[in-house]
Amino acid sequence: MPHIELGNPLPGLPALLRYRPETAGPLSALAETLLRGPGPLPRGERELIAAHVSSLNECRFCDASHSACAAVQLPGGDDLVAAVHADPGAAPVDDRLRALLRIAAAVQRSGRDVTPELVDAARAAGADDVQIHDTVLIAAAFCMYNRYVDGLATTAPDDPRAYRAMAERLTTEGYASL
Amino acid sequence: MPHIELGNPLPGLPALLRYRPETAGPLSALAETLLRGPGPLPRGERELIAAHVSSLNECRFCDASHSACAAVQLPGGDDLVAAVHADPGAAPVDDRLRALLRIAAAVQRSGRDVTPELVDAARAAGADDVQIHDTVLIAAAFCMYNRYVDGLATTAPDDPRAYRAMAERLTTEGYASL
Repeated sequence: MPHIELGNPLPGLPALLRYRPETAGPLSALAETLLRGPGPLPRGERELIAAHVSSLNECRFCDASHSACAAVQLPGGDDLVAAVHADPGAAPVDDRLRALLRIAAAVQRSGRDVTPELVDAARAAGADDVQIHDTVLIAAAFCMYNRYVDGLATTAPDDPRAYRAMAERLTTEGYASL
Repeated sequence: MPHIELGNPLPGLPALLRYRPETAGPLSALAETLLRGPGPLPRGERELIAAHVSSLNECRFCDASHSACAAVQLPGGDDLVAAVHADPGAAPVDDRLRALLRIAAAVQRSGRDVTPELVDAARAAGADDVQIHDTVLIAAAFCMYNRYVDGLATTAPDDPRAYRAMAERLTTEGYASL
């Protein structure tokens, strides 16, 4: 049960966006820009970074919804997302993406855990500066969304089909549709 | 030295906003809404929550700049901010604000650390639901800004006067001026 009376039956972030429209605007715009706006990372990879950080933060709603968004946009689908969750070091992703996922995991712990070595490794594997920037910002942003969603104890559906339906909508209509 | 070539000599968040204007828009709008937009928490208290979380995340740039913004807007000034940093449990703030700072500190660790007991205590001390919501979201947002600023290793001025000057501008012209 949510910590405050949200006045709507929605789960996760959508419940909070409807509760406080003043902050919903910038929060939706940020998600849209980070996950679907112009940038060098494919949208599926951005969702995978978001899902990976949400998994590390043990945020069930964000993990399930962004895992579903990654799965519908990446050729590897659900199996690839599950492999990254199980062990990003062994998952079948290219070295560049693996190095970016390692940076995202550092950000999840602390911004100060991103070392020059992690950045050099990403660059050596083919990541450019904007990819590194966007990875850090997406990971940081999900440290916010995860804490917002769980800090107010919003609900999360149990049925995986709910997240798949959400992902179909988000990946076609975008985050402004929230 | 920043991890990527930012192409400008600015410190902290302003350097990142100038580097990537696409994400700067929603990030500035979010800061403006959270810290200066319509809401039940006085602006000085919002800045104090932001500074407290930044201090717990050991983000020097955000801690110093939002501490300065809190100090210029709260009657207790620098002494009050220093007392909260040293020990929020003993600082001369009212019980409501103390309970909200405790919620913010829980969010800094994990959204899942916000317990019904912490929320009940804030409510018993006079906080309403929107104050509790805004506290959680401000604390969560600074877990993002702190990680973004430190995750790309931006610079931070040593001179306290630089933060005071920034605070004078932010508290009069707002975060859109970034």
